[in-house]
Order: sequence, then C-alpha cells, then structure tokens
Amino acid sequence: MVRNVCVLGATGMVGQRFIQLLSQIPDFNIVDIAASSKSAGKRYEDAVNWHQTTPIPDEIRDMKIVNTDPDEVSDDVDFVFASLPAGLAEPVEAAFAEKFIVASNASVNRMKENIPLVIPEVNPEHLEMMETQKDVNGWEGCIVTNPNCSTIALTLTLKPLFDKYTFKRVSVTTMQAVSGAGYNGVPSMGILDNIIPYIGGEEEKMQSETLHLLGKVNGGLVDKANFPLSASCNRVGVVDGHTESVSIEFEEDDVTVEDIKSAMSGFVGLPQKEKLSFAPEKPVIVRDEEDRPQPRMDRDSGHGMSVTVGRVREDVFENSFKYTLVGHNTIRGAAGASILNAQLISKLYL
Amino acid sequence: MVRNVCVLGATGMVGQRFIQLLSQIPDFNIVDIAASSKSAGKRYEDAVNWHQTTPIPDEIRDMKIVNTDPDEVSDDVDFVFASLPAGLAEPVEAAFAEKFIVASNASVNRMKENIPLVIPEVNPEHLEMMETQKDVNGWEGCIVTNPNCSTIALTLTLKPLFDKYTFKRVSVTTMQAVSGAGYNGVPSMGILDNIIPYIGGEEEKMQSETLHLLGKVNGGLVDKANFPLSASCNRVGVVDGHTESVSIEFEEDDVTVEDIKSAMSGFVGLPQKEKLSFAPEKPVIVRDEEDRPQPRMDRDSGHGMSVTVGRVREDVFENSFKYTLVGHNTIRGAAGASILNAQLISKLYL
Amino acid sequence: MVRNVCVLGATGMVGQRFIQLLSQIPDFNIVDIAASSKSAGKRYEDAVNWHQTTPIPDEIRDMKIVNTDPDEVSDDVDFVFASLPAGLAEPVEAAFAEKFIVASNASVNRMKENIPLVIPEVNPEHLEMMETQKDVNGWEGCIVTNPNCSTIALTLTLKPLFDKYTFKRVSVTTMQAVSGAGYNGVPSMGILDNIIPYIGGEEEKMQSETLHLLGKVNGGLVDKANFPLSASCNRVGVVDGHTESVSIEFEEDDVTVEDIKSAMSGFVGLPQKEKLSFAPEKPVIVRDEEDRPQPRMDRDSGHGMSVTVGRVREDVFENSFKYTLVGHNTIRGAAGASILNAQLISKLYL
Amino acid sequence: MVRNVCVLGATGMVGQRFIQLLSQIPDFNIVDIAASSKSAGKRYEDAVNWHQTTPIPDEIRDMKIVNTDPDEVSDDVDFVFASLPAGLAEPVEAAFAEKFIVASNASVNRMKENIPLVIPEVNPEHLEMMETQKDVNGWEGCIVTNPNCSTIALTLTLKPLFDKYTFKRVSVTTMQAVSGAGYNGVPSMGILDNIIPYIGGEEEKMQSETLHLLGKVNGGLVDKANFPLSASCNRVGVVDGHTESVSIEFEEDDVTVEDIKSAMSGFVGLPQKEKLSFAPEKPVIVRDEEDRPQPRMDRDSGHGMSVTVGRVREDVFENSFKYTLVGHNTIRGAAGASILNAQLISKLYL
Repeated sequence: MVRNVCVLGATGMVGQRFIQLLSQIPDFNIVDIAASSKSAGKRYEDAVNWHQTTPIPDEIRDMKIVNTDPDEVSDDVDFVFASLPAGLAEPVEAAFAEKFIVASNASVNRMKENIPLVIPEVNPEHLEMMETQKDVNGWEGCIVTNPNCSTIALTLTLKPLFDKYTFKRVSVTTMQAVSGAGYNGVPSMGILDNIIPYIGGEEEKMQSETLHLLGKVNGGLVDKANFPLSASCNRVGVVDGHTESVSIEFEEDDVTVEDIKSAMSGFVGLPQKEKLSFAPEKPVIVRDEEDRPQPRMDRDSGHGMSVTVGRVREDVFENSFKYTLVGHNTIRGAAGASILNAQLISKLYL
Repeated sequence: MVRNVCVLGATGMVGQRFIQLLSQIPDFNIVDIAASSKSAGKRYEDAVNWHQTTPIPDEIRDMKIVNTDPDEVSDDVDFVFASLPAGLAEPVEAAFAEKFIVASNASVNRMKENIPLVIPEVNPEHLEMMETQKDVNGWEGCIVTNPNCSTIALTLTLKPLFDKYTFKRVSVTTMQAVSGAGYNGVPSMGILDNIIPYIGGEEEKMQSETLHLLGKVNGGLVDKANFPLSASCNRVGVVDGHTESVSIEFEEDDVTVEDIKSAMSGFVGLPQKEKLSFAPEKPVIVRDEEDRPQPRMDRDSGHGMSVTVGRVREDVFENSFKYTLVGHNTIRGAAGASILNAQLISKLYL
Repeated sequence: MVRNVCVLGATGMVGQRFIQLLSQIPDFNIVDIAASSKSAGKRYEDAVNWHQTTPIPDEIRDMKIVNTDPDEVSDDVDFVFASLPAGLAEPVEAAFAEKFIVASNASVNRMKENIPLVIPEVNPEHLEMMETQKDVNGWEGCIVTNPNCSTIALTLTLKPLFDKYTFKRVSVTTMQAVSGAGYNGVPSMGILDNIIPYIGGEEEKMQSETLHLLGKVNGGLVDKANFPLSASCNRVGVVDGHTESVSIEFEEDDVTVEDIKSAMSGFVGLPQKEKLSFAPEKPVIVRDEEDRPQPRMDRDSGHGMSVTVGRVREDVFENSFKYTLVGHNTIRGAAGASILNAQLISKLYL
Repeated sequence: MVRNVCVLGATGMVGQRFIQLLSQIPDFNIVDIAASSKSAGKRYEDAVNWHQTTPIPDEIRDMKIVNTDPDEVSDDVDFVFASLPAGLAEPVEAAFAEKFIVASNASVNRMKENIPLVIPEVNPEHLEMMETQKDVNGWEGCIVTNPNCSTIALTLTLKPLFDKYTFKRVSVTTMQAVSGAGYNGVPSMGILDNIIPYIGGEEEKMQSETLHLLGKVNGGLVDKANFPLSASCNRVGVVDGHTESVSIEFEEDDVTVEDIKSAMSGFVGLPQKEKLSFAPEKPVIVRDEEDRPQPRMDRDSGHGMSVTVGRVREDVFENSFKYTLVGHNTIRGAAGASILNAQLISKLYL
C-alpha cells in the first residue's frame, strides 16, 4: 500500500538522502517537503544546495517547500521523516506527532519513556510503545526514532550473537566518515593527511544506545542489556562508510570463529521475513578476505543497507573474538534506518 | 666523540631517513653508504629516488655507493645502520656484525637469543646481551635491533605505567600512516577515501615485541612481561604518523586519570639522563585538548622523537583507562630509533 | 542480436571493468576470459584480485580462465575486448585479429594505417578502415581502437564545436584520477596531500589523438585536423574521473557562450541515433552552477558515459572561451569506450 | 634594528602564521596582538584555536589580546600586520594607518590610488607611493599591501622573463591548496576524492593584480603591464602549496628553454641584494626532474619563501613555453609576503 510522506529538514544532508531514497521506493509518495522559513515558499531546486551524486528527482525539483509546521502539511500524510537540528527536534517532533507518525533521526528523543528506539532487524517489538505514547499524550501520531549511525552498524552485528551467547564485555574503536558530521561538519584542513580522535557525544551515544536496543521493553521504559560496552570514536578522511574494530568477550568458553560467522551470515530479522522492499537480503554480510571490509569497497553492499563484517578471528583474551565492520553511515545509519522503520510500521501497524 | 657510520639500504625509504637524520647530528659522520649491486658504483644522487622533503645533504650527494659487503666498508666504521629487505637482513646483518655494531630495523633478528631489542627509554639494560652475542659468535661487533614502528610508540607510553602498576590487560587499535609500508607499499587506489583494516604481520609484532621490551633479560633470553595484549591494525590515508587508541585495565583499583597523565608526562629515561643529543626532552607529551593528538599536528613533536598522548580518560570497564597516542613512524618508529640506540651505545659502551 | 565476446587481460583493472560492464548488457554474452599463463586454468574468482565496488558477476565467478591464445577461444566469438600491457598488445591483438574483431584499449595500434581510432559519437566513419584492414592483412577479423582516457573526454566536447566553427588554438590542463594508472600505478606516498605534475606520454597522446579523431579518412590513413592543441597533464588525489580545464580560440568573432552551451548540450551522435543501449542519452551534459563539474559528483553521469561540462565563459583572449569538463576515465575513457565501439559495429557492420 | 610590531586578526589562520613566523625573526618584536572584541582581554592561548604544527611561541602564549583599535596599541609600534575579514579591512586599516605602517593582506585596498601593492623582488619601487599616501591623507603611517597568494607565486616566476622579453599572452591553470580558504573554508565533503573547479574572485584577482605588479608607478596610480593574462582556478585536496600550470607566448622568436631556466634560476631582487633575513636565497628554484615541482615536496623550499619551477618546455604554439610552479600559499603567499614587505621598508625607508 502506498503511503504519503513528508520530509522535514528537506534541504539538509540527511533530508536530501531521504528525498533521494524515498523517490526510489514505490510504496512511499512524497507529498510535502518542509524546511526553515528561509526556504519555505521556494521551489526545492532553488532552495537546496544539492550534494548527492544522483540528480534531484524530477518530481521533487519543482515542489514548493512549506514551513516546518504541521498545519502546512497535508492531512493525508502517513509518515513524517525528520532530520532536524538538535535544538529544534524536540518541540517540532512533538508538534508533528499530534497528527502524524514521525520517523526521527534526532538524538534528543531516542531514549525517552514510551518512545521506541528501533532497528527493525534488532528490536521491532519495541514498536509496541507507540500505542502507549499515543495514549499518554493524547496524540493521533507518535515518534519513532532510530539510533546514531555508528550504533546501528555495531548493533546489527551484535544482535545475532547476543541472541545465542552472553557478552562479558564489548569494545569498539571506530573510524568514521566525514559525511556523518553534515556537509560543513569537518573542515578539510582538519582531516586531510590527518585523523581527529574525537567526535563530540559519539562515544556516549554508542555506549548507551546499543544497550538500549538490545534491552527489553518494560512498560514504557526499556530494561537495558547488561554488559559493559566501551567505544572510542575517531574521524578519518573517508567520505561515506564507518569502519569499526570490535572485540567481544563471551561468558561461554566454546564459541568458535565459525559460530560467529555463521550466526552473522545467517541472521535475518522481521524486515527480511516480511519481505520489506527496502530491507537488504542480508543485514550482515560476512567476508573471508584478510583485508576486508573496506569503506569504499563495501559501504554500498545491499544498496547501503547491509553491514559488512570481516576479519573474524580469536582475540588474545579468554573466550574473546575480534572483527571489523563497515556500514554506510548516511543510508543504513540515518535516512535508510528511518525508512525501514516506516516500512515495518506500514506493514504491521497501519 | 664523533663516530663513523655506514648506512645499508641507503636508497630505500628508511635508508633515506637515516641519511637525512644522521647528517644533522654532529656526533655521527657518514663515511660509507651501501646499496644493492644495481646502485653500487654510482653517485648517491644518481642512484636514489629521493622522497624526503628536505634536499639530499650536500656531503652525501656525490658520495659513491658501495656494495652491501663488509669488505667494501671502511674499517674505522663504528656503527652500521641497516634497513634491509626481509629476506636479506638475516645473513647480511650477521656478516656485518663480524666487524661492526649493526643497528637494525629488520624484524627477523628482533627476538633471537642474545640479540637485544631495545628502546633506549624503555629497556636499555637489554644491551648487556651485546657482550654475550660477541662472545658466542666470536664477532668483533654485534646486532642491536629496534622494534616495529607501532610497537615503539605504544611501549613508550606503557613503560611509565608498567613501572608503577600491574596490567591486567591492554588493547590497542591502530590507524597507521602509509609511509610505514615503504614508498610503493600502499597504492593510492587502496587508500583514497578508504581504510585497509589489515597490515600483514603487524598485530603479531605488536603483541610479541611489546611484551619482550617490557621483559627482563635472563641469560641470553628475555622473560617476557606477562599480561595479555591485543592489537588490531588498520591502514589509513595519512602520510606520516601512527595513531593508536589504547585501553588498559589495571590490577590496582586506585589509579586515576591524573596518575596516568603525571606518570607519562614526567617520564624520562636513560637517553634524557645522559643528555643524548638525539633524545627528545620528553619521550611522552601529554595534551589536554579534547581532540588531540592528531597525526598531522603532533607527529613532529620533539623533532619526531616524542610520542604525544591525549584523551586520557576512564574506560567503562573496572580499573580501566583509555587514551590516544600519535608517534612518528619513520622517525621515532624506524630510523630515529636505531640512531638513538647507537647514541646510547656510543655513550655508555664504547 | 546477442554477440559472444571474449575479454583479454581479464584480471587487470580495465579487464575487470569490461567484465563488470559487459555483464550488465544483454546484447553481449561473455563466453571466454583470457589472462596470462599464471592465471590460465584457474577459476576467475581464484585468479583475480577484484577491485570493483560491485561483486564479481555470478556467471563469471566460476568461469575458467584460458590462455591469451586465439586457439583457446571459442570460434563463435564475435568481439574480443583487449586491455593488454603495452609490450604484449601489438603481437597479441594481431594474432586475435586473424579470426576476431578486436576492440582494443592499447595505445600501440591507435594511429596505424588502416586501423580505426574511434569515438562513436565523433568519427564513426573511420570504421570504414576495417574492411581494408581485413583485406590488406588477409584476416577474418580486424582491430578497432579507442583513444586515451583524457582524449576521449576532451574530444567529445570539442566535436560539436568543431563541426560548426574553426579552431585557431586549443589548450587543456588536466587533473587526472589515479585509477587511470592502474591499481598499482600511483603510490599513496606520491599523491596524498600532493599533485604529480607529469604523466608519462599523456600530453603527447592528447595532442596527437585528438587531431586524429577530428580528421578525415584518406585511404587507409587519416588527414589530421589542423589546429594547434596544447596539453598539460597532472595527477591528483581523486579515485575516478578526469577533470580538464579547456580554452579554445575560434577564427570566428561571433561565437557566444550560449552558442557553445547549446552546441554541446544538443549534441548527439550515431550511437544516440541508432539507440545503442550503452550510449548515454546525452554525450555531453552542460551544467550552469558556478562550481561544477566536480569529479566525485559528476563522473557517474549517464552511467559514466556522459562528459559533464561547466563554467563555459569568455576567456580574456580574442574570440576565446574557457570551460571545465569531467569524464569517467575507466568507463567512458576505457572499457566503456571499447564496448560502445563494439555495439556500433554490431549494429551497422555485422 | 629591531622593530616593534602588532598583529591584527591574531587568532585567524593568517594571524597565526604571522605570529609563528614573526617569533622566529629577531628583528621583529611582537608587542601587541589584537583580535575581535570576543577575544579581547583574554590570554592568547585561551582565545585562539591554534592550528599550526609548531606550538604557540612561549612569549605569546600569555600575551593579552587587545581590541582592534589603534588606541589600544602601543605608540612605539612600527608595523601593524593585518589579516582582517573583507568587510572590516577597509575602515580598520585606514584607522591604523593614521599612526602606523600597515602591512595588509586584504584585497580591498590592493589597487587603490597611492597604495602600493608590492612583492619586494618584483616591484619594490612601488613603495614610493607610501609618501604621497601619507601626505594626501595627512597620516603618520600608511598602508602597504601584498597580492593574492596565487598571484605572488605566478608573478615571481614571470618577473625575470618580463624584464628580458615581451609577453604576447600568458595562461595559467591553478590547483590550489585548501589552506588558502581559511580553516573552515573548504568542507572535507567538498574536497575528498574531488576537485572544485571554482574559487570566487580568484581568477579576476590573478588577472588584474599580476598586471598591476608588473606595471609602472605613474603619480599615485599604476600603468598596468599590457598583455592578456588568463587564469583558471581550481581547488584540490592539498593542505598547503599552490600548483600552477603556466604557458607564455613571447613576441621574440629566439627564446629557448635554457634562456627561461637561467633567467629564473639567476633571478634575485632587492631583498636578496639587501640581505634581508626573511628573504630566500633564491626567489625561484628551477628543478630538472620530469615530475617536479610537487606541493608536498617543494612547498617548504626556502623556508616557504621560494617558488619552485619545473617542467620548463616548449609549447606547441609559436614562441611559446610551458612550466609548472609550486609556491607556499600561506607563507610566501600571505603572512611571509607582508613580513618581507615590512623588512624591506624597515631597511630602506625607516
């Protein structure tokens, strides 16, 4: 069934990705695009500084931008895809949620009571919080959020292991692409022939969101998974695709490299079972080459929706294993994450 | 006292660094340069494809290259600086050691009986093995080796902590510069907009050499330090300067961030005490900015001989701390390491 | 009609592109892949170091590589796509031309008597030399060549102007991607934070091949176009996509910026008229933004087969104009060029 | 003789370079540093986001920043080094010129009546306008400007040829480093794996300033040199060092490659004759390797104050020659240019 959708923050980097991706999906129909008052009233092409490598979709080029105001958006909209600046996200998303289902990329609402933070292959059952959220607030709509880009890629690879084994501890060191910071986020003077070993708030987000995603809904709250997770985050001179070096220590003493590879490789979630069109065939692709995954080579796997894992090997610590993953940070890690959430809701809840 | 020196593999990348650095040190006098038979007999300038950003030193430009043969080298040479291809290093270094002290960068001899593997600030007492080596082999000279580039930077930061505390485990994830692989080592197609999450043999070297360096000489062998150390090595698009993200778990439960910073910051070794001219004032520089160290900004600290540490912070695990370090891989991590070894030997053993 | 094809040099960079592109074109059927004796006899997947961002096509993965020998190739092959090292190309292409039509990327045969050097949109009539070539050599097949990568992009933009106006002189300065030199061609040490202002033989190729392409067949030879053309070639840190800064002085004194833009923008050639499936809708796309074209943004236009032009503006010299172009060097500039040649021959000559 | 100096815009990128360079020159003594009211009153170290690879000079670290107001600056200042935002430069420099000699990097005052635009090796005689400027305005001080970064490098190489030959036309295509745009000027998303073929205003500046510099003072104005000069400017992913591909057509028909190389190589100007400490021994260094100059290898020649030329060769046009140059854009092209102007004035006019 075709759903009418609206994109908020439509001229920003993630907003552009939403438009690029949504225009390729037959079951979503963009009926409204909203941006700041500076852009409102203009044709999309005139307002946007388009940074995607494919052209602006023809049907969007001439579309008139409306204000970021629920009253300016068509009543028959089913989903609002939101990618708003941190300061704005909280009140604006709440205002839209009175009437619409808001699929949000913002961090501010991610771990609030009754608001599901979801990766469809990982914790689709958290979507049950949508109903309580509507009831509690007296809204017709609700807010559904997706995690931070580096968290999504990591958690997709942890989930098939978490279902079978008990984690004693997990460490991850990331090497993150510049696109994760937005178009103007990382000056070239900072990253050419260089690494920036710090991304504000990123380590905290990875450490808390991952445990939340692997947790269980308990009323309107989530009982977080209970293992220590340490994240160290670095920015590197890569355009798209986050690379993460992961180490896991298990409680079990009989896990093998083959167990890990087959658990990841065979992993499918609800989006695959429900045959959602935007779901990749394999959420996690395992490669055997000694020098993969690499961001430029593997970020577009599964149209950017698969995470690629390689170098699965024993670590020197007891019952410990290491691997490297690459995930596309602006597709699986941002716009595509919201879209897959919406597809799942569309199929199962509307 | 001025020492006469010879450089083997003088046209290679590390050989060039030896020449560049040695020509700035008054207490070393380059009297011979040797290379493969293809280059022997030529003027240095005609044989070398010079890749340093400073010009070939004037006194070297016209020097005639000799064969890599001890008989072609002046008898009054005190030190032979060697940077030879893996296959050649073993027999050639042994041949030169019959007459000369060989300061070697090759990995093949690093952990053999009676051969010291030394960072002067870390384990200068391992040099005592030189004597036995001479005796056992009946040589006039001997071989002294320095560790792998990424190991040197890591171990310099571990040493001041290792002296005060007990390590339960150490993990390190590296982001290594392309110069570490030699001029032709990393094709640009492999590293532009990319990361290669694998460096052949590097993880094994870091894991074994670090424990060797922190170990104690016992006869002609070394009793390695006894803690698990896990290394994950990545190649990134940086010209010079290895960045390493480190986590340490201590046995002690009362270590603080300030303890770590002051131990590192106050650390001096024998080269500093002996006021060796090539020794940096501080082997480890600790910075407080949240986004340092960075390879392009910090690799040249202490003329490339200091390692810069930043982001010292608590880790989520018990009694655990994290930090990031940057060290210059071809100065402190290669040519400069051998030179500092030679300076120390020159001062204390000749 | 479906044609059976063979790829020579199938494990190299251009060979991989041939396989990637041909497997997407229904009217070509890869029946044989050949490589050096080192690879012959192996499964393709086992022999190749695959560097494309899409996976090896399933139907090729298990194909057995044959020797680069016409007798090992099926007799029913219609086209042989060749991308061979300079030294091998001349004898090998001649040997295959005894039986097959060879679409060649090598420079050695480009401007020989009776051998057409063709861009299908520019000089398809040069293909008439195929018949004489067969006759003269007594071959059943023949050799057809395509130009150097930087020449193709330039000449596609010159052609629509050359048809209407008289060139007094043309200058071009290129900024070329590293992929043009093959996977190992440009070490990362040479191009990170750097430019190499020299590409061996490239300026000469651009200067001669462009005039040849715009010339007229006269017997088995070509009367070259008659205007001075100066090329300056630089290598820059871009993965794919050559950028070229062009200046043209016309004999005519009434050419306008709009004339140039509309000539380029409206340009179509025989591949477009014949509706060849691999031909881009527009060989030249003209953009109006002040900061386009850019290689990362525009190289994939027309699936890599369109050249993008921007910044068309008056130059300070009399009757002179400048513009910038971007073309994909390994698609339009190499493998795709040979494929489009073959499609045109398939449609009109077989 | 030691001169007291003040730096305006001391926290910006060029301001930082001023401080880094001036602190190494014994004949300049920084007595005041000024910045916006946001920074005024703070210690320099607390106000600046220091982006140089050498540390903040010790004597500057604790210096208190004053407002950008002539009354807050010590009366005994001899030179004010100014690097101000475009909008501010005009009124602020005029205000300071009432009392001080202002050495300015801003473009706004570059070609005004009575204001010298000077490269000391090229047109030191333009400094005679200083006196008239003082008289006309009734100022004690005056404004002296230096050209745009890409213009300085080009003009230094043109000057020795311009003195001997007559130019019929000159063309230049630049490949400019990101540092030329300031720390936040070029987002990494715009330049990684990319080129931006446009720099706002740059082509116009090169075309006008070069002719101005090679012109003759006529009263308070300059009779510009009279030849057509065409510039095409591109931004590339290089940190420091502009590369320029140049073509010159001479009126003379007997110029040779050797003539050009010896004219450039033997070129010295007034700063060399006066033995100014900041003047490079050779303003232009000519190299013979086929693949030089390269920005990473050659930008630091002459401590960043020499321009390196290579690939001098005949062009295909009549009496035409081509070459490539590299110049350090933030040393010779900005801060160092102002400093050398001040050194010359200090020696000859104070």
